[in-house]
Amino acid sequence: MTRRTTRGLPVPADFAAPPSERRRRGWAEADLAARPARLGRLRARLAEAGLDAYFGLRREEIRYLAGVVIGEGEEKVAGHSGRFLVTADEVIVLADSRYTLQVRREAPGARIFDAPADLAGAWPALLDSAGARRVAVPAGDIPRALWEALAAAAPGVELVPAPTWVDADRAVKEPAEVERIVAAAAVADRALAALLPAIRPGVPEARIAWRLEMLMREGGAEALAFDIACLAGSNAALPHGSPGPRRLRPGQVVLLDFGAQVAGYRSDMTRTLFVGEPAARDLAVYELVARAQAAAIGALEAGAAVARDPAALPSGREVDAAARAVIEAAGHGRHFGHGLGHGIGLATHERPALSRSAPDEPLPSPTVFSVEPGVYLGGRTGVRIEDLVLLDGAAGRVERLTRFPREVLVLPG
Amino acid sequence: MTRRTTRGLPVPADFAAPPSERRRRGWAEADLAARPARLGRLRARLAEAGLDAYFGLRREEIRYLAGVVIGEGEEKVAGHSGRFLVTADEVIVLADSRYTLQVRREAPGARIFDAPADLAGAWPALLDSAGARRVAVPAGDIPRALWEALAAAAPGVELVPAPTWVDADRAVKEPAEVERIVAAAAVADRALAALLPAIRPGVPEARIAWRLEMLMREGGAEALAFDIACLAGSNAALPHGSPGPRRLRPGQVVLLDFGAQVAGYRSDMTRTLFVGEPAARDLAVYELVARAQAAAIGALEAGAAVARDPAALPSGREVDAAARAVIEAAGHGRHFGHGLGHGIGLATHERPALSRSAPDEPLPSPTVFSVEPGVYLGGRTGVRIEDLVLLDGAAGRVERLTRFPREVLVLPG
Repeated sequence: MTRRTTRGLPVPADFAAPPSERRRRGWAEADLAARPARLGRLRARLAEAGLDAYFGLRREEIRYLAGVVIGEGEEKVAGHSGRFLVTADEVIVLADSRYTLQVRREAPGARIFDAPADLAGAWPALLDSAGARRVAVPAGDIPRALWEALAAAAPGVELVPAPTWVDADRAVKEPAEVERIVAAAAVADRALAALLPAIRPGVPEARIAWRLEMLMREGGAEALAFDIACLAGSNAALPHGSPGPRRLRPGQVVLLDFGAQVAGYRSDMTRTLFVGEPAARDLAVYELVARAQAAAIGALEAGAAVARDPAALPSGREVDAAARAVIEAAGHGRHFGHGLGHGIGLATHERPALSRSAPDEPLPSPTVFSVEPGVYLGGRTGVRIEDLVLLDGAAGRVERLTRFPREVLVLPG
Repeated sequence: MTRRTTRGLPVPADFAAPPSERRRRGWAEADLAARPARLGRLRARLAEAGLDAYFGLRREEIRYLAGVVIGEGEEKVAGHSGRFLVTADEVIVLADSRYTLQVRREAPGARIFDAPADLAGAWPALLDSAGARRVAVPAGDIPRALWEALAAAAPGVELVPAPTWVDADRAVKEPAEVERIVAAAAVADRALAALLPAIRPGVPEARIAWRLEMLMREGGAEALAFDIACLAGSNAALPHGSPGPRRLRPGQVVLLDFGAQVAGYRSDMTRTLFVGEPAARDLAVYELVARAQAAAIGALEAGAAVARDPAALPSGREVDAAARAVIEAAGHGRHFGHGLGHGIGLATHERPALSRSAPDEPLPSPTVFSVEPGVYLGGRTGVRIEDLVLLDGAAGRVERLTRFPREVLVLPG
């Protein structure tokens, strides 16, 4: 496998610069233009099911459908603010006094309904004002206690567990959504390139993670997509561990799993780098994981090329199997415990899933997901390589959005 | 009201230094020693209600009861990992392959149960292995769809909506918990003192917020307690707005709401500072808010002093009313739309609540909560002053844990 050492290391200028204000304005305009169609799809489903309204509870959905921005951790302190009702002719956003001005600015077309601490008390008035009698509620999002309280508060209203309609719609990406994921991937690529000189023996994992975070936040990301994993040596066998005080040592791998958020959209990538001369065992695992990833990409390309027919695309289960077969053939099946990948967009993990338990139906298209096989040898070492991939069946296109090289990278040890 | 200008501004050395490794180890040992009693309280409640097990779903609870650390945003990607069952003689933690090693290290006394993507499929086996037939489930935490799936998977098992037992227990703070909140408050105090020279006309809100974040993260915080609010001038009338590109102007207020996380425990504080000579209107609002806060603290002190009897403590509703009466008397009642305060600990918002709708029963003790009155004049200005307060009825003690001065602070404009 190709190997890059000091002279051949990537540098920030290899990757796209952060998006300009003009591009950001363009994305905001594209969202504004796309929202009627997004709402239209939901309304068509309501009409078909004989339902009057959809009661949404998730921050991704209120941003997607109405443009209201609620932060990731903010949901827990927002109370009912940001929850919303879509009817045939209205979008009604709940907002307490803290959120009224924000919602008025971000969703000028929406009606604001004062969100009390006790939503059940106001539920009959809300539904009356919306003229809704049969309401779809995503049962995976609503706590059971709230469902029961709403059902008891308005016995004349029927609550209907809603299929995950908006999740399915969000899996299919509009061009301006893909552009933002590409921009977020480039922010992460550039930050890693800028980080490389700081990855040296003696530096603690947590310091490397913090430096990488600063590089992303000062390089165009408004937030991280998730907490950075920076795991050295045997810690890399923890596929989800947190960076700690442990210091890098020569000859170790260092696994970095991280992503940026740009204009609401996320990226997610993993690189496993070598600090000093790699152990033969680690190199062998690396090459195995790289082959598994290539096999998954190959399965996607084969499906996308055949017919340019979205129905001919492989399922998430098939793509997972293509990568897993490579790892199993090498006797490491039980060291690859997680799924191959996940969709990404306004949430870091969303549809589609690529895993052993993923639905056995063609992947949606166009869509973006991670391809991230890994092999973890408990107590010894671990390797994961993760790229974001755009799949567009109609265009016969499979494209890696993560541009950072995947060759063996050996940093000075 | 006292006013401080350039020469009298606070400096970082006015506040406690970040905790040493030794103190951190002491806290970990205190948690380990406290866990049997925490579990004992829960088990006594199960026994009293004739229940065999408690199925917990929240990251605060698994950390409090078993020591497993799940990050704030991590819950969404962890699947069922970190969810847990407490029976009379076991703690069983769900963990998929990504989390097994971590849980084994953090909760060595717990039994690990392999967490499948489809929990319902494994639910009967899990309950059989635990010998549980009647299971308490916090209905405010479990999504309705999961409740329904678990109920259908094991019809012989009774799911019983659980009162918020662990929330109630967590509201009463152990000494080592209070110490961590104090340490988190000091990290925030010091960071703000270090930030002051950077708060100048022409600097964008977002840059100030990012600098404050860096100061906390490099000054002892492993994370923020929540996204920082930094709001200048009329933006300060948005009690929950996000910092943006808007630049500070002389004569404006700047409202900073922020907190640190130290060894899992949070802090939360707000200061409204003046950049250049304050407008008379803003000064008047500031003094009103400060008086409202003092009235709340006075009500707490009166209750704590009378009898040294926890039952004599005021309710969260009464303390809110004490502050609100001051603001209403000045004709600004409708400009103070949110509650007076909230408990804090492993979560940024937890029990007890101090608000118009808070329970009319004595506050728990010892406990820690925020006291944060605010007055927001839409489109013009806003002022909030927020301190954390320790209430210990048995000791007759009311103590502000936030040490940063509350006087009018005028920065060079």
